[in-house]
Amino acid sequence: MAEAFDAVDVIRAKRDGAVLTDAQIDWVVDAYTRGTVADEQMSALLMAILIRGMDTPEIARWTEAMIRSGERLDFAGVGRPTADKHSTGGVGDKITLPLAPVVAACGVAVPQLSGRGLGHTGGTLDKLESIPGWRASLAYDEIVTQLRDVGAVVCAPTDTLAPADRKLYALRDVTGTVESIPLIASSIMSKKIAEGTQALVLDVKVGSGAFMKNAGDARRLATTMVELGAAAGVRTVALLTNMDTPLGRTAGNALEVRESLDVLAGGGPADVVELTVALAQEMLLAAGATGAPDPSDVLKDGTAMDVWRRMIRAQGGDPDAPLPRAAETQDVLAPAEGVLVRLDAYQVGLAAWRLGAGRSRKEDPVSARAGVELHAKPGMHVRAGQPLLTLHTDDPARFARALSALEDAVEIAPAGSRPDQALILDRIG
Amino acid sequence: MAEAFDAVDVIRAKRDGAVLTDAQIDWVVDAYTRGTVADEQMSALLMAILIRGMDTPEIARWTEAMIRSGERLDFAGVGRPTADKHSTGGVGDKITLPLAPVVAACGVAVPQLSGRGLGHTGGTLDKLESIPGWRASLAYDEIVTQLRDVGAVVCAPTDTLAPADRKLYALRDVTGTVESIPLIASSIMSKKIAEGTQALVLDVKVGSGAFMKNAGDARRLATTMVELGAAAGVRTVALLTNMDTPLGRTAGNALEVRESLDVLAGGGPADVVELTVALAQEMLLAAGATGAPDPSDVLKDGTAMDVWRRMIRAQGGDPDAPLPRAAETQDVLAPAEGVLVRLDAYQVGLAAWRLGAGRSRKEDPVSARAGVELHAKPGMHVRAGQPLLTLHTDDPARFARALSALEDAVEIAPAGSRPDQALILDRIG
Repeated sequence: MAEAFDAVDVIRAKRDGAVLTDAQIDWVVDAYTRGTVADEQMSALLMAILIRGMDTPEIARWTEAMIRSGERLDFAGVGRPTADKHSTGGVGDKITLPLAPVVAACGVAVPQLSGRGLGHTGGTLDKLESIPGWRASLAYDEIVTQLRDVGAVVCAPTDTLAPADRKLYALRDVTGTVESIPLIASSIMSKKIAEGTQALVLDVKVGSGAFMKNAGDARRLATTMVELGAAAGVRTVALLTNMDTPLGRTAGNALEVRESLDVLAGGGPADVVELTVALAQEMLLAAGATGAPDPSDVLKDGTAMDVWRRMIRAQGGDPDAPLPRAAETQDVLAPAEGVLVRLDAYQVGLAAWRLGAGRSRKEDPVSARAGVELHAKPGMHVRAGQPLLTLHTDDPARFARALSALEDAVEIAPAGSRPDQALILDRIG
Repeated sequence: MAEAFDAVDVIRAKRDGAVLTDAQIDWVVDAYTRGTVADEQMSALLMAILIRGMDTPEIARWTEAMIRSGERLDFAGVGRPTADKHSTGGVGDKITLPLAPVVAACGVAVPQLSGRGLGHTGGTLDKLESIPGWRASLAYDEIVTQLRDVGAVVCAPTDTLAPADRKLYALRDVTGTVESIPLIASSIMSKKIAEGTQALVLDVKVGSGAFMKNAGDARRLATTMVELGAAAGVRTVALLTNMDTPLGRTAGNALEVRESLDVLAGGGPADVVELTVALAQEMLLAAGATGAPDPSDVLKDGTAMDVWRRMIRAQGGDPDAPLPRAAETQDVLAPAEGVLVRLDAYQVGLAAWRLGAGRSRKEDPVSARAGVELHAKPGMHVRAGQPLLTLHTDDPARFARALSALEDAVEIAPAGSRPDQALILDRIG
């Protein structure tokens, strides 16, 4: 075991702007995981890290220490290259649902240990749980078997995966220490590296509905994570993508599964298809899968849909069961004629949350049925009085609060206006 | 009760450099005292306060909120003006022992709720507890009675005095959030204002053995506390005094009581007498006691000693009982002939601590007998081989670690050298 330190000395060092030594980092992460360093000491250290920052070698060491707090999985036995994708979270971001089957259909295995939603952003596991019978928890050997047989797994992390991160994440949530690039980057990358993927593509969102509101912060986060991946031997690339408006035409759990099925059937909204294909291409490239089929083709010829159906069935789900629908709906109408130039992602996410699709605390339940359906996207011409949005919920008392979240969500400009619509802003790595 | 806030919102506001509102401060201090805000949340907030700072109105409000967490005492019934003194802590700082009787002998009552030592600095209660029978804990009505009958009380704070501060102080100690001027100032002043004194003189130490190592920090702390006192209606003045070398010729509990008795008998080291008289004059002035006797006179004519004896007896102590002495002593000799230009307060304090006079954690016991005796003070001529210090302990195994603390404590310069010996550096208020 590492040399013992005094927690107060480590806290004071970072508080006063010092670079923590490797030995200090190893000790404090391990001692916190074991409970020797108390929550109140770690939260003071996290606040000092948030304000003072960490340099690249410090972040790398912190990440390694979190990985070493648990087991590192290994998918060498799967028999094909592996690639995973991680999104920093947005509104309507159902990309994992079509993407995992697409990449598997192209010959690369996708071991995606995924998360649940918090606040205005949805979570992949919550979305998949709207499919009757589907279960998120798999044992390690079930993951390996499914990767070998089906090629794609989307499931909850095992308990042994970076336990330090799980404990730190819960602490950061209640102590105002979430918004730190070193802490965000090390949290994401410790889980992804420990998960054992050989290649990783990061979808770093930027905009009103994203965690990072400006491109500078998003770029710094992306660069940090790409460096951490490279240092750990995981081929990592990041796309910076726009999250000023929701992805696709739905935000909400069952609503997003339905839209994903449209994409897997060769249709679906253009932006969801564009991002699915772009991320799939990056994953194939990072996994070294030269000569793989074109991701657009596996969407059109039904092979991605086949993988989807097998993937859902392997985890107990019925791909043919009808998806649940909300009992009540209410339309939001366009207030004027013109070009829709803004449909704010954050406010739509907040409305979906208030309708029941999201949770405030990680132990809260979510509704599979609640959410928001979009009938127009920025750049489209709308007529006064036409439905712009449909709100879905089982509890009509929630409409008023959802509507108040949407008060400034929509902006309509005179005909001829053109909003900036670029979806993929940059590529890093 | 105050409006409810979300703890994370308050933490984030200070983290991002905002000024906390009165309502936020009132809520968070109260909620922390009641346990609604958790230790890990408060420690993150304390770290943000330490790094981002607080402006004067914020510190004043924080102080008021801590006072309101308990009872505010009132000594109006004592029938004479009251004045208290607070020292920020140093090595050999036994000034309260002669000072309280001196001021009482001059007609002003001294209600001093005092503390215990931590680390290299001693605590007044620890010193007085080396007197057989003396007890530190008094009930509020006993304090009032003793103030009326004797004129001076030195005792432990009652449980109802600023409980928020007690809880915060313990948390700061383990989370690296002690060294913050807003937090130090509000901690000291909340207790002193709640204690109910009408006038307050602060002895803000600066130098190697003090909490504040440089005059700029000490002046900022003093100014902040004087402002807080004035805002709360307590006439407050601060002296900045030198703590590069120990006060007097002893550091250690019983050793310091013995030296204080010398001062009360009209003798004792010049620096202890000088500071006792200067602080007494400030206390009389702040209390508005015009026409009071001269503090030097009550030391010389035995009236201060009379008050001392009654004060000790009133709290169960025997002023005639012999003071305990350590079983073992060891001398430290002068390495050369010349002028002693430095005898480092911090290192002497550390040696006394290691000999058994101090504690590392507040629940540790201290030895009444251990400590360091000084045979020379800076400015004096010394001969090679003469005893400079005598170490006192009951456990001779402690000598080696005490000696290692003293390795660089002494500096001897050629004859004719003159160290800077000013004791009182400035007056603020």
